[in-house]
Amino acid sequence: MSVPRRPRVGHIQFLNCVPIYWGLMRSGALLDVELTKADPDALNDALVRGDLDIGPISLVEYLRNHENLLLLPDMAVGSDGPVLSVNIVHREPLDTLDGKTVALGSTSRTGVMLARMLLAEKFGVTPTYVRRAPDLTAMLAEADAAVLIGDVALRAMYEAPQQGLTVTDLGAAWREWSGLPMVFAVWAVRRDFAVTHPGLVKGVHEAFMRSREITMQELDIVAEQASQWEPFDAATLAGYFRVLDFSLGARQVAGLREFAARAHGLGAVPALPTTGPEFFGR
Amino acid sequence: MSVPRRPRVGHIQFLNCVPIYWGLMRSGALLDVELTKADPDALNDALVRGDLDIGPISLVEYLRNHENLLLLPDMAVGSDGPVLSVNIVHREPLDTLDGKTVALGSTSRTGVMLARMLLAEKFGVTPTYVRRAPDLTAMLAEADAAVLIGDVALRAMYEAPQQGLTVTDLGAAWREWSGLPMVFAVWAVRRDFAVTHPGLVKGVHEAFMRSREITMQELDIVAEQASQWEPFDAATLAGYFRVLDFSLGARQVAGLREFAARAHGLGAVPALPTTGPEFFGR
Repeated sequence: MSVPRRPRVGHIQFLNCVPIYWGLMRSGALLDVELTKADPDALNDALVRGDLDIGPISLVEYLRNHENLLLLPDMAVGSDGPVLSVNIVHREPLDTLDGKTVALGSTSRTGVMLARMLLAEKFGVTPTYVRRAPDLTAMLAEADAAVLIGDVALRAMYEAPQQGLTVTDLGAAWREWSGLPMVFAVWAVRRDFAVTHPGLVKGVHEAFMRSREITMQELDIVAEQASQWEPFDAATLAGYFRVLDFSLGARQVAGLREFAARAHGLGAVPALPTTGPEFFGR
Repeated sequence: MSVPRRPRVGHIQFLNCVPIYWGLMRSGALLDVELTKADPDALNDALVRGDLDIGPISLVEYLRNHENLLLLPDMAVGSDGPVLSVNIVHREPLDTLDGKTVALGSTSRTGVMLARMLLAEKFGVTPTYVRRAPDLTAMLAEADAAVLIGDVALRAMYEAPQQGLTVTDLGAAWREWSGLPMVFAVWAVRRDFAVTHPGLVKGVHEAFMRSREITMQELDIVAEQASQWEPFDAATLAGYFRVLDFSLGARQVAGLREFAARAHGLGAVPALPTTGPEFFGR
């Protein structure tokens, strides 16, 4: 007897995806997927390699591999203004960083690309970039500014100002510069899997949509429960979850296209076709 | 800032534990644990080795390691009568198997022990046991009876009678023989973890209790949703989930003690202390 296998779906084990996990749990949708939790780099690779069928992927990695992938409609991780967790921490104004050293504390493809793009094009500076472990004190002992992403960046947003440091939120800076929302990650399905299993992909996508609705209704409960295990209090987490934009509507797609065009201009990614990005089911 | 780490909890990736998983999902409790899904043998080993803090464990393995473990109260996987998924499939009556060959299609410690115990003591026969892959046709080509456990046993329960074979449900046989429920697996916490983190263990236990309540209310939904991915229809799954006994009350503990005493009599496990089993929080 032939039974369909559960789609292999990735999940980012970071704070910004806790609301996504919550909804998949509460709706019962976790029973319908084989979930692999990992860090973003591992999930990017697994999806590109074909070890996952569907998963979140850094926008930059999607742009590099868009020929093999389709986007799931209406979902992303982004911000329409401050994102709180993608920051540059610095002592002097950003437009004085020309020829100085900037430490990159993350391998996050999109956050790092955004930092380079804004420093070059908005602030007109070309610093030297060095990769370092994400320890703010150690980074600033050596460099003039530090790019932080994720939980450590969220922490720096609250603590660095007390140490006389300035924190520039790259989500806010992008919004100010481009007038558009920033999209950091998207959900993609492998094109070959979408062709052979369109019904399963539709089911997973619908499950994600239902899950997001549940999550939005229960965001304070998620924050309260997550605060037991995360080094942030419930109010901080609720505030963070609320600034995150999990949608991918017309404005977000415009932001994605704007970022893609500029990243292509910098030689970082192939050009997105003028009709792109290509969506599953459209 | 010191944040407690999530307890490392095991989950059996078999059909009989789908209701447990469902409740942990729907209640939101999955956010509070670091869940490792694996087969029973791997989970037994991980808990005994200390790679898990809390998890389900085969009753026989618990009895072998009870000095390092405490049981979580009120939860188990058992049956008070037929269990449907722990069976002997045979052509001739079981009391004719003396000197014959019985193929064991599973490494399940407790199910196999129960089969040997019942054949020896209830049916008065001492067959030769051989271990084989769980393929009923291949097993019966070579042996006179086959012990099946898990999903393949559940399938045989429905299909073997059509092939002129008899299926003896070992849960029902134990109940008839001992007058007591059978307990196949229990949930245990490592004694060292319980001593250092009693609050976390209490939290996990309470989460399991809440989860079981939710599951019991939604059992038909669980069955319906699971039937998409399992080779059984929703009615079969709902029937199976309903015969399973996830409680561990006074009668179940009496059944556990009876089984432990008989298994010790056969030299298979150390003696359980007269005051045992020892529970967390009592």
